Formats: sequence, structure tokens, C-alpha cells
Amino acid sequence: MANPLLSDRHVDFLLYEVLDVERLCALPAFADHGRETFDLFLASARRLGRELLYPSYRDIDAAPPEMRDGRMRVHPKLREIYPQLVALGLTNATRPVAVGGQQLPVTVSALATAYLMAGNLSAYGYVGLTSAAAHLIEVFGDASLKERFMSRMYAGEWTGTMALTEPHAGSSLADVTTRATPTADGHYLVSGSKIFISGGDHDLTDNVVHMTLGRIDGAPAGIKGLSLFAIPNRREGDGLVDNDVRVAGVIHKIGWRGLPSLILSFGERGDCRGWLVGEPNRGIAQMFQMMNEARIMVGMNAIATASVAYHESLAYAAGRAQGRPPSSRAQGAQVPIIEHADVRRMLLRQKAIVEGGLALLATTSLHADLAGHASETAVRRRSQLLLDLLTPVAKTFPAESGFESNALALQIHGGYGYSSEYLPEAWLRDQKLNTLHEGTSGIQGLDLLGRKVVAAGGEALAIFAEEVNGAIARARAAGVVAAACDQLASALAITLETTATLAARGLAGDVDGMLLHSTDYLTLFSLVAVGWQWILQAAVAAEALAAGCGPRDFYDGIACAAQYFLATDVPRVAALAALCTGGAGGAADDSYARMKPEWF
Amino acid sequence: MANPLLSDRHVDFLLYEVLDVERLCALPAFADHGRETFDLFLASARRLGRELLYPSYRDIDAAPPEMRDGRMRVHPKLREIYPQLVALGLTNATRPVAVGGQQLPVTVSALATAYLMAGNLSAYGYVGLTSAAAHLIEVFGDASLKERFMSRMYAGEWTGTMALTEPHAGSSLADVTTRATPTADGHYLVSGSKIFISGGDHDLTDNVVHMTLGRIDGAPAGIKGLSLFAIPNRREGDGLVDNDVRVAGVIHKIGWRGLPSLILSFGERGDCRGWLVGEPNRGIAQMFQMMNEARIMVGMNAIATASVAYHESLAYAAGRAQGRPPSSRAQGAQVPIIEHADVRRMLLRQKAIVEGGLALLATTSLHADLAGHASETAVRRRSQLLLDLLTPVAKTFPAESGFESNALALQIHGGYGYSSEYLPEAWLRDQKLNTLHEGTSGIQGLDLLGRKVVAAGGEALAIFAEEVNGAIARARAAGVVAAACDQLASALAITLETTATLAARGLAGDVDGMLLHSTDYLTLFSLVAVGWQWILQAAVAAEALAAGCGPRDFYDGIACAAQYFLATDVPRVAALAALCTGGAGGAADDSYARMKPEWF
Repeated sequence: MANPLLSDRHVDFLLYEVLDVERLCALPAFADHGRETFDLFLASARRLGRELLYPSYRDIDAAPPEMRDGRMRVHPKLREIYPQLVALGLTNATRPVAVGGQQLPVTVSALATAYLMAGNLSAYGYVGLTSAAAHLIEVFGDASLKERFMSRMYAGEWTGTMALTEPHAGSSLADVTTRATPTADGHYLVSGSKIFISGGDHDLTDNVVHMTLGRIDGAPAGIKGLSLFAIPNRREGDGLVDNDVRVAGVIHKIGWRGLPSLILSFGERGDCRGWLVGEPNRGIAQMFQMMNEARIMVGMNAIATASVAYHESLAYAAGRAQGRPPSSRAQGAQVPIIEHADVRRMLLRQKAIVEGGLALLATTSLHADLAGHASETAVRRRSQLLLDLLTPVAKTFPAESGFESNALALQIHGGYGYSSEYLPEAWLRDQKLNTLHEGTSGIQGLDLLGRKVVAAGGEALAIFAEEVNGAIARARAAGVVAAACDQLASALAITLETTATLAARGLAGDVDGMLLHSTDYLTLFSLVAVGWQWILQAAVAAEALAAGCGPRDFYDGIACAAQYFLATDVPRVAALAALCTGGAGGAADDSYARMKPEWF
Repeated sequence: MANPLLSDRHVDFLLYEVLDVERLCALPAFADHGRETFDLFLASARRLGRELLYPSYRDIDAAPPEMRDGRMRVHPKLREIYPQLVALGLTNATRPVAVGGQQLPVTVSALATAYLMAGNLSAYGYVGLTSAAAHLIEVFGDASLKERFMSRMYAGEWTGTMALTEPHAGSSLADVTTRATPTADGHYLVSGSKIFISGGDHDLTDNVVHMTLGRIDGAPAGIKGLSLFAIPNRREGDGLVDNDVRVAGVIHKIGWRGLPSLILSFGERGDCRGWLVGEPNRGIAQMFQMMNEARIMVGMNAIATASVAYHESLAYAAGRAQGRPPSSRAQGAQVPIIEHADVRRMLLRQKAIVEGGLALLATTSLHADLAGHASETAVRRRSQLLLDLLTPVAKTFPAESGFESNALALQIHGGYGYSSEYLPEAWLRDQKLNTLHEGTSGIQGLDLLGRKVVAAGGEALAIFAEEVNGAIARARAAGVVAAACDQLASALAITLETTATLAARGLAGDVDGMLLHSTDYLTLFSLVAVGWQWILQAAVAAEALAAGCGPRDFYDGIACAAQYFLATDVPRVAALAALCTGGAGGAADDSYARMKPEWF
């Protein structure tokens, strides 16, 4: 059987049984939608992912883009794929009908695009980046910019990028030095160098528009002096003419090899025009709209990449005969390796990561929909707080645990997994980027602990606790085994206590002490968040089983994966909390706080 | 500064301060040695690793071996490297003077070769495999085989391999089908197919000798019917003539790219001669000598690969300026990223894995020396039990944690780490093989729990506990912080209790139940074993500081890494034990025991 990329049954379960996305159709924004339009969009994405993207994945991986005559040439198969992704409406699926979009809920769109990411995440990257870039212009640009750039980007005629990083300024955007000098004609003359620009040039479309952070002459230092510009590779003149954006170098990435990552040089001849998007010196706040969308997209990339590998290893384990169980020393035929407990452990661990992570991303997306479109202000505000809180978690758990999951998929393939005759090694390479781009895992930890869990005086965290407690109560009522419910309840209590202790440290002026274990805190929080998703899924499965709904196998598998995650991962919370705070009356481990460079 | 590959100061600390290898020179086997000869050997290995292997690593990685005219052609730089490795005496450094060796302690040889592995592990692979293969013939072969094969292999004229795996028989050696038919001339005619044969053909020497498991016609089924054969690619006739061993395929490995991994076909023309080594049907027992040596070698490969990446990321972190600490929002110059707490965490975690793992391998090697050469039978027996017990741990902790460590080295390099312009991605690829070859991590867990910890009626485990308790007592006496000592003592107690509970389950007939969590058990045991190494190193460092020995920095770093590992990793033992046994009166988590294939 061909690789399904994701489990359709699980995706449908999330959409229609766990989250009940059909209720969104009661909101004015989604009034034209219903399960039929959702399923149609899903079916198209599934078909494209399975029939077009997955089959061409290895060829595209094996022959990355090359520069010829100053222009990037991408794999010819992308020229077949890209128009079909555009035709599916992916550049603006969730945007309003008024700008040509389908006004689909983010939740539906996100789960549908997961199939495309799983099929070939760098092929999807072109439309994903274009969509997010055009969305920035839609929200912050004036009518002329929308006409000039947004409409062509949503139409797929031009693509978009985000151009933040410079060789000396990656995580530290405060140090961006790209300069923009105003002209009398309304545009700016831009000069500077950007690095790691994904899709910065290619031969799929006539033009690429870079959403670029730069500093207007005389602007303040630091992040408060950054403005957002749209800078096309080619500008309109006598047809499209060169806009003095040069590909100064190609990064030889170890994955995502369908999508070029470039060093771009703006304005070497003094003739690179950029158009200010929105107000001057508001670039960071504006860009964060794109960054937050991108972070959730990265989380989905990560889960999709773990998912395709999980399904590949599941099929391999069912088909590969090797050895016999320890209790059976008889010389019968060898058994499929899925019969070995440790192989089943590796498969169930992947399932727990993939389907737990996907549930978290689906829930996060649902709150994006509610934050944008719920009728009551209070609901919108509540969902926005939750969305902001969950974003660093929905980015990092998939990236970090996804890497572990991809390594397990390779491991199940044994020695064959170590060869490029099999695909798991390629997905493992792809996955590693997700802990790095759109903010490293370390940056996400600082965001979560330093900003998100203490937001609105702790309100965001209280809402999160409410959600988790609600899921636990539902699970108890549905008859989910008490030990699992207790485990999560205890982990949540520890999380709240740990957060209070750390926040108090910060308020007392010890910011470095508060944030010392922010990565451990992010891990701890992620385990509770994914534990929440598993107890919720277990509750829904138990309810369905009690109601005698459909075949049991799927629900039994959900219950088993929930049991696994709650027994294996959630109990780590106590030890992580002790690291962060030192436990009752203790002190946090200070080993790397006091470690000096010369001691290494 | 050039990458040191390993820390010389730490290697010297292990050899001369922690393990006091000079005391081995009191044994007759090592009477001709002393610190001077040890240091000479170490200095040569360090020089070769740094000046010859490391500088050519990337070129060799980038251009893997190719088949031309039916013969494998390896990278030309290997033709410079190989003779120098042979000249250093690496094929038989630890073997007796009587067979041309240097009769060095394994401990010294292992730490010296770690530099060569760190410099280029596939280049070292040729001599490592040859040494282990020739050692098999030295121990089990007769005089004629020794003259024909062993002497040429030890001299580096021919190389050796281990040829166990067949396409349908990897972990399950019982299913090996390679056939051997006796002839009147003393040799056997062999036919069969082997896969993943590292170094199975190349153009560095005239010949390759495969230590091959096969089944003599009429032998019993299963592992008890396997015999060991020496099968050369070319045999002596009119000069060296073809021995009907054909390269049937090349595996495109994702790492170790200097060393070909081949599919070999024996006897397609019915003319492949093999020579029986030792007794018929004793192949598995004999091969395990090589397997056990190879497992420790894999552990060392893993630590070496983690170490070179650790040092690369340490230098990068000291040199790369980016951002400012959270407590300092001033717009001063950017700081080196080693100033960020989370980067220091990633560096200290690598140090804890690399130097903790290296200490474990050094200790394991010391017991190999004592098992072979101590004067008293009781000491030899004690060390042999400990060596056997530690082998799966010394293989797996480095492989599994080394992969995490290598990923951290890449992560510290940020986006640059994701490109093949920097080296960490290559070492990450190299590292992944170590959880697979010479027995997967799953196999090692079964070996540890199903065989090693219950060996000799629990005597091996009791000896291990004695060693750990001894180290804790020494640490307490030296003033190592009590919390760290208590943490390890508690983890050891949990380990002993968990083992007793599981062993009782096995004795009661529930073998599958006993072994269900063997991978978790291996992780648990590894944490205690490496915790032991850290408390021991912390004790020695504290003693040295109290005695006012030398500069403080190194010892302070050892104390800090010990603190980190004992606070961060060792506390996981409690949760792992609960998984394995269910804790007091409970039941082990049975999620993947009851998970059915159709539930996935």
C-alpha cells in the first residue's frame, strides 16, 4: 500500500469528533462552508500529496537547485507541482473572498496542507511562504501595494519570502543593518545583505517579493527602529526590469532540498527599490504576524515530516520478517518485526508524537479561527491568549520530538535505514531544520517563559489550566483509566506551581535566574500540553466506544497511544520542575549558570 | 585553534588520575611499558588524528567509494592515510609481542585510537576491523591459518572484515543460510550472500579476508549450526587468484563514507574457498569475541564522533557574536553566544555525554585488561563479569546519547549548522550508524536485561553495585556535594530493586513481561553507569583541588559537568523504573504489549 502520509481516520477524528469544526460554520465568516466543502478541500490535498508530491520527493531531494546565469534553477518536477498547488487555492485558502480567497477555517486548511508538507515539504514551501508574505501586505499595506504585490502573490503569479536574517544578525534582529533611504517618488532605496532566504530566487514564476526588515535612515537603534519593506527581485518598468537584488550565494542545505536557501544582496548598484509596508519603525510588530503564522507552519512541517516517516516504518515493520519473540525459541518461520515488543514501542512512540503533536496543532489552529472570527469579544480574547501561549509549544514540541520520531523511523529500517536507497534518512535531514528556523528552540523557550505564560497577569496560563482540567474531567467521566488522569492532573499542578515560583523570581529582579531553565520549562510545558491532547483524544475515543460508534480498532489505538504518552512522557514533568526551581525550598540546578568558558 | 578532537587534559586525567593505568605495568603482560611508552603512542595518535585525518575528513566524506571494473575504488587520500595507521601499529597494538604486537593495555590503545576515530572514523575502520578479524584467527585458528592470514593482516598487507549479516538475516543470525561444503583438500566450498560488509572490497591492499558465519552441510538449524570461516577475496595460487567473491552491490550509506559497505556474493561459480576457523558449529561463540570487541569499538566511535563535534561547537560558540543576555537590554556590542545560558547548557550537556561516555569506555577497557592479565584468578573473573555487564551499556549510551550530543553541536551552529559548509551535519550522519551496527540498541537492551544483569546468579550486578558504592563513598569523603551523592545512591538502589523485580518475573516464567521494557531498563542502567563515572571523576577532581594540584579550571569544569549530569539525567531513573515494573505493587506500562498491528 502506498504511504498515506497522514492517517485520514485520525485527521477526520480530530476535525469532526475532537474539535467539531463544523460548529465554526455557525460563525458569519464560515457561513458558506460545511463538511462537504471541508472534505472536498481535504480530498484534493490528499490526492496531490499522495499522487504528485510524494512520488517525486526523492528525485527533487537528490538534485537541489543550481545557479545558472545568475538565476536559480529548481528541479523541473517543481514546474509541474507548483501550478497545481496554486490551483488548489493554497496561497489564500484561509483569506477572505474579498481578496480572492476561499475563507476556509485555518484548522481545515492546516490539516489539509499537512498532507502536502508530508508529501514534499520544500515543494509546499513556495506557496506557504507566499501566502504568509501576501497576508502581511493584505493586513498592513495600502491599496496600491495590495494591487501591485498582494494580488499577484495570492494568484500565484509571483512568490514571496521573509527576509529578516543577516549574516551577523540571526536570532538578534535588533542588530539588523539593512538600510532604506527615502526618495521623493515614494519608494525607498535599499542596501544590505540577507542570508538564509528560502525561495529567494527560482524559475517557477517571473518574480519574487521579499518582505524585508530594514532601518530607515535616522531610525532608532535596536528593534524599535526596524521597518517592513516589500522588495521585488524585478520591478515594473518597461515590463519587469531588474531591481538590483543579486543572489550572492547559495547555502548547501542538508534537507529541504527543493527550496533554495540564498544569500541576497540588495542595492549593490544603488538601485534597489523597496516599498514601505505600513508605518515606519513598526516592522517587528508587523513581522510577528508572519513569524507567528510561520512558527505554527514549522510545527506542522515537523509533524508532517514525522508522520510520513512513521507510516513508512509502520509498513516496513509489518512486511519485514526477522527473528522470533524471546519467549519463542522454536525454529518456526521468522515473524514480521512489528511482533517484537521493542519495535512496537518505537512505532507507538512515533504515533504518540505524531498524533499528539497534530492534535496540538489542530487545537492551536482552532483558536486562531476563534480569535479571528468568534462572535463574542470575550471568546476572541480568550482564544487569542491561548493561541499566543501555545505558539512556541506548537512550534517546538513537533520540531524536537519530531526529530526523535524520525530517528526511530530510520532505526526500525535497521541497516537499510542508513542508506539512501530508503527514504527515512532524507526525512531525518529535513526535520533538523525545524529546531532552527523561525526562532531556535532556545528562543521559543525564552518566549514561552519570559513572555507568554506571564502574559495578561497570568490569565493565559489560567485559561490553559481551565482547558486541561476540562479535558481531564471529560476523560474521567468517559471512564478513561484514573491513573492516566491523575498523572496529568499532577503534572498540571506542578506546572502552575513552577510557573508561579519562576515568575516570582523574575518579579524580584532575578530575570536571568527565572529564565535559566527556559528550555527545560518549555519541555515540561510541552509534555503537559501534549498530555492534554492525549487525554482529550482518549476521552472522545472512550465516548465513541461506549456509544458503539463504528469499528473499534481506531479507538483502541487512540486509547493505547494515550496510555503510552501519559505513562512514559508526562511523568518526566516532576524531574524537570525540580531542575527549574529546585523543588520545595531548594535551588534550581545552577551548573551551566556557573560554568565558565575556560572550564570547558 | 584547530579542533583538538578530544581534550588531551581529560584523556590524561582518565588514564593517570582516575584509572591510574600505570599500575597495570606491575603485571607481567605490561612489564615493558610505562607512562613514557603510553604517552608516545598517544602522541602519535593525536598527531595523526589532527594533522592527517581531520583535515581530509570532508573531502573523503564528499566523494565516497565507487565501483570500477568490478573493484571498489576508495578516496585517494586513504592511500596516504592507511599506511600511516598501519605504521603506528594499530592492527595489533594490544596483541602480544609474539605475534608482532606492542602488547599495550587496551585502555591506552582505546583512548589513543579515539583520536583517530574522531579525526576520521571510516579511515580508522579499515585497521579496526582488520585488527578484530585477525584477533579471531590468533585465538581460534591453527598455525597454518595464522601464517596464511593473521600475519598478513596484522602486518597491514591484507585487511579483514566481519561477514555475518545476510539480506534476510540481520539481528536474527539463527537464520543465516550461507553454505559450506567440505572438500578433500581441507578447505570448504562456500556459497551465499552477505550484506552490509564494511570494507568488503577496496584498493588499499591486495586482499581482504572475511570472517564469515556459514553452515556446514548437515549442520543443525539455528545458531548452534554456525561455523566460522576465513574467506579471502583472492587466494594463493599462481600469485593471488580470484576466489569467486563478487561485489554484488554497493550500499549508499549516509555516513562513514570513506568505508564501502557492500553486498558480497560467495561462490557464484562454485569456486569460493573458505577455511574453517576452530571447531565446527562453534561459530557464534567464537564470533562473539569479535562482536564484543566491536561493540566497545562502536561505543568509542560514537564518543569520538560526539567529541569532535563538541569541540567544533565549543570553538564556534566562543567566536560567534549574537545578541545579549536577557538581563542586559542595553545596545552594547553583541556577545559571544557562549555567554547565553542555553548555549552553555548545550555545551555542558555535550561535555557530560562525551566525557562521561569516554570515562565509561575507559573503565570498561581497564576491566578488559584486568580480565585478561591480572595475576589473581578472582580479579580476572571479577573484571570479566564487569566487562560483560558493561559492554552493551558502553555500546549503547554513547550511540544514543552521542546522537543527541551531535544534534546539539549542529544546533549551536544555528542556520549554518544546517549546511554542508560546516562539519556538524556530517558527524550527525556518521553517528546514526552506531545505534544500528553490531547489534541495534534494542538488541543491546535484551542482552543487558535478559543475560548480563542476571549472569552468575546476580554476581555481575553485585560487583557493579560495589563499584558504584565505592565511588560514592570516595566522593563523600572528598567533599563532593551530598545531594549529588544521594541522587546516585538512590538511583542505584532503585536499579537493584527493579532488576530483582524483573528477574523474579522471568524466573516465574513471564519472560516477555520481564523483557518488555528492556530498552527503558538499558537507559536506566546507562544513567547509573555514567552517573558512577561522573561521581568518580568529581571525587578525583575534588581530591586534586584539595591537594592544590595544578590549575583549577579543568577540575572546576569536571565538577560542574558532574553536577549537571547528576542533577539532570540521573533523576530520570525513578520514572524509568516505574515504567519497567509499575513501582510498588503496580504493573509495568503495557501499552505497546497490548497494541495490535491493526490499531496503528
